[in-house]
Amino acid sequence: MYAEKFPSVLLERAVNEFAQLPGIGRKTALRLVLHLLKQEDNRVFGFTEALNDLKQNICYCKECNTIADGELCPICENPQRTGEIICVVENVKDVLSIENTQQYKGKYHVLGGIISPMEGIGPSDIAIDFLVDRVASGSVTEVILALSTTMEGDTTNFYIFKKLKPYDVRVTTLARGVSLGDELEYADELTLGNSIKHRTLYEETLTT
Amino acid sequence: MYAEKFPSVLLERAVNEFAQLPGIGRKTALRLVLHLLKQEDNRVFGFTEALNDLKQNICYCKECNTIADGELCPICENPQRTGEIICVVENVKDVLSIENTQQYKGKYHVLGGIISPMEGIGPSDIAIDFLVDRVASGSVTEVILALSTTMEGDTTNFYIFKKLKPYDVRVTTLARGVSLGDELEYADELTLGNSIKHRTLYEETLTT
Repeated sequence: MYAEKFPSVLLERAVNEFAQLPGIGRKTALRLVLHLLKQEDNRVFGFTEALNDLKQNICYCKECNTIADGELCPICENPQRTGEIICVVENVKDVLSIENTQQYKGKYHVLGGIISPMEGIGPSDIAIDFLVDRVASGSVTEVILALSTTMEGDTTNFYIFKKLKPYDVRVTTLARGVSLGDELEYADELTLGNSIKHRTLYEETLTT
Repeated sequence: MYAEKFPSVLLERAVNEFAQLPGIGRKTALRLVLHLLKQEDNRVFGFTEALNDLKQNICYCKECNTIADGELCPICENPQRTGEIICVVENVKDVLSIENTQQYKGKYHVLGGIISPMEGIGPSDIAIDFLVDRVASGSVTEVILALSTTMEGDTTNFYIFKKLKPYDVRVTTLARGVSLGDELEYADELTLGNSIKHRTLYEETLTT
């Protein structure tokens, strides 16, 4: 760690700002700031403008709550995506991850967080009521819960499940089991135990 | 890697900008951008303003070439620092590192790079002539070469040494040897060999 006697207040301020980002320590912050200092003016102003623009003009899709440029995100606008299936995710990173699998043709619902008493995030802080409204409005037949397989994720899954009970909708969750390509001896006991308990018909694995 | 179909052009642009920083991949860039999106407007504008300010208003100390807020840096302005000894470093990070040791009371000279044919950096691209002028102007009695112990650092050291030959100035370099706290068996051969060749009088180590 630097005891820090920066020769410049401007430099120090910029380093402090960078160092507040998650996972960026003071040494890295200084390296990034010095890198930017070496760039052309335009590059730096382009960088800061992109961030200001994003912060000022970002919208959230009024249908699925993901980050969007306008009222609707490209996925909700796409007529080829069925609105009958909704995949519930924590944030836009998860939307991108699932999109990358190219296995999903339904729409999404971005909660914007998961229930976490430790961090003071309750059900009303995330877009659960919004999801219930969506389901209540009719055409949805299946809701896929695609949250992290953590305590918080499980809590949120259960809360949503209970909330959706009154509606005629199938609630599913991601399959949990041994990762593809994993050696059994390295799989953890919980995962392995769970995957034995929820074993699937071999025939069914052939169809994918 | 994300194949990346961002739901928002604004988001994509911000992520692209972040991902151009050294050591920041696309996943990290997205994480940082989403973190900033969650912050108050003021926080984000403070961040971008600090960077713009730095880029627009930064000065370089006219005496030692380090980053400064005005004409002189705090070290060159300090009357308690002797101008007779100049420590030559690559960049402001090295100034901070040496300042942290609290072992040095002279001034600095920041080259702003080292000679690196691989990266197309020649002697005229860094502040070597400026250093020679400083030495030529008189009061300097010792120049300490404190560059990285790499091929590029050694080349730069040698170039500066030749340039300073005509002047009545002592040119020294950082001691190279086994790191403090290192087990001998883990020291690399070059370092160990070098530290035997340049062994020092035991008596001298007692005075520090």
